Amino acid sequence: MTTSTALLFADLTGVAVFAASGASAAVAKRLDLFGVVFVGVVAALGGGIFRDLVIDEVPPLAFADWRYAVTAAVTAAAVFRFHPQLARLRTTVLVLDAAGLALFTVTGTLKALDVHVPAVGACMIGMLTAIGGGLGRDLLTGEIPVVLRREIYAVAALAGSIVVALLSTYGHATTAPLTAAAIFVFALRLISLRRRWSAPVPGRGVQM
Amino acid sequence: MTTSTALLFADLTGVAVFAASGASAAVAKRLDLFGVVFVGVVAALGGGIFRDLVIDEVPPLAFADWRYAVTAAVTAAAVFRFHPQLARLRTTVLVLDAAGLALFTVTGTLKALDVHVPAVGACMIGMLTAIGGGLGRDLLTGEIPVVLRREIYAVAALAGSIVVALLSTYGHATTAPLTAAAIFVFALRLISLRRRWSAPVPGRGVQM
Amino acid sequence: MTTSTALLFADLTGVAVFAASGASAAVAKRLDLFGVVFVGVVAALGGGIFRDLVIDEVPPLAFADWRYAVTAAVTAAAVFRFHPQLARLRTTVLVLDAAGLALFTVTGTLKALDVHVPAVGACMIGMLTAIGGGLGRDLLTGEIPVVLRREIYAVAALAGSIVVALLSTYGHATTAPLTAAAIFVFALRLISLRRRWSAPVPGRGVQM
Repeated sequence: MTTSTALLFADLTGVAVFAASGASAAVAKRLDLFGVVFVGVVAALGGGIFRDLVIDEVPPLAFADWRYAVTAAVTAAAVFRFHPQLARLRTTVLVLDAAGLALFTVTGTLKALDVHVPAVGACMIGMLTAIGGGLGRDLLTGEIPVVLRREIYAVAALAGSIVVALLSTYGHATTAPLTAAAIFVFALRLISLRRRWSAPVPGRGVQM
Repeated sequence: MTTSTALLFADLTGVAVFAASGASAAVAKRLDLFGVVFVGVVAALGGGIFRDLVIDEVPPLAFADWRYAVTAAVTAAAVFRFHPQLARLRTTVLVLDAAGLALFTVTGTLKALDVHVPAVGACMIGMLTAIGGGLGRDLLTGEIPVVLRREIYAVAALAGSIVVALLSTYGHATTAPLTAAAIFVFALRLISLRRRWSAPVPGRGVQM
Repeated sequence: MTTSTALLFADLTGVAVFAASGASAAVAKRLDLFGVVFVGVVAALGGGIFRDLVIDEVPPLAFADWRYAVTAAVTAAAVFRFHPQLARLRTTVLVLDAAGLALFTVTGTLKALDVHVPAVGACMIGMLTAIGGGLGRDLLTGEIPVVLRREIYAVAALAGSIVVALLSTYGHATTAPLTAAAIFVFALRLISLRRRWSAPVPGRGVQM
């Protein structure tokens, strides 16, 4: 398997995982087959479409390469069909979701840096690539985006994108360090899940 | 009337119909005059703006040709003023809405194919052009998008866009077959309304 | 201070003000630190990102110039930390918000005219630049956008953008008239707040 085949395989794995998370949310809302597939596809491809629009990569990869849409749609349809079994796979889904987050963070940040977006902007784009699909999923199903409310999720993506930007600045954006960055996001997400880490909530403020 | 005049007329008819549907939803939420016009304009132009962004047709036609915005705004304002009468026109509105769906499906898919988006992506773009305005309308008015919940609506658009892509692939994307494709979407939508067809909802799943 | 330094300073003031408004809304929803910063950044930069996408200014300024993101994030984090004090500053925030609205209206409309968007489209883009961030804030926090429901807010932006388009058409888009246009939006917004002006709500309609 060549590097680019490996990358495509990893990318499509992320697409499938996010499609499954979107489809699960839509099933919970009792949407019909089309609604489940649609929310799954948005969750899988939304972040990447946003990324490609802001870096002027048009048409976005999600429209230019049919394998993305087909992977997302087939996965979401499978969730529609087999969702009771998936309840037993909750841990697996969370682990795969963390893997998707890690991967999209790294590839999103790299693509932005490649077209000469400055580092701060590239980190924002990387994070939005990773969390954008989940935002779309929650907006479509009428929820306040879960990424804004819960544990270290977007923060893991942001931390990973900063690592990627630093690696790139110092000329180390090669396979091994980038893989390490992805593993860092993956591990940070899983550890924060297990330890129930979360960002602080608003306090009573500081009395001046 | 030349072909391009006919096309513009048809396009603006679609814009007016979707503006009316958006404005009706906003009136039902008791938004003020500005809110009604704004939701109407988003419903009418949102799908086309999204389409033009992903195919890099900038500025989007909705901003480049004033007749689009004016048609949408005037229609929405008229709905604000005359909405009690419109209740009696419910069947007319549903028929016009089906016509708008059919038209935007065909033109959206064609525009994407024209700029060399591959077939699967062009079908997605065609469907999103047709349903995008309604999605924006429902997000703005705080509803789970109705297109994700009810009858054969987006599915009719998707089927129509596949027909258009097939016609184009085999070199038959001329006026008569494209008109037939639009009539196919229109008829599929109306028949599914009358027969109360709908996509399946999540079942108990398959026991393994 | 040169003109362009003054403009940047004014622009970043608008960013900070809108970040504060977004962060306040997020604090009210009890989002965590990340959620508050995220909603603040969307409120501050969302309108400009939309503007830059439709006029094909990519990557959008919000990603290309780090000062925008940092200003927004730091302001939102400060609101998270000090929000009880801000309750006493409600009037100040409303005045600053009107200033942000005025500024983004003028700069948004001008940028669209600069890239040869026709006048009607440029007015729409100017208004959307000014209200887009607030729309994003409300969608993320699960509210029907307040801009669609209350006083003369978007209408002030639209009126200002029409003034700017007229000035530009007749060759008067120089500093003094544009400043006057910004003051016009600012004053219209504040007067409508004080007098409780609002757009009409749907009536019983006209009997024919």
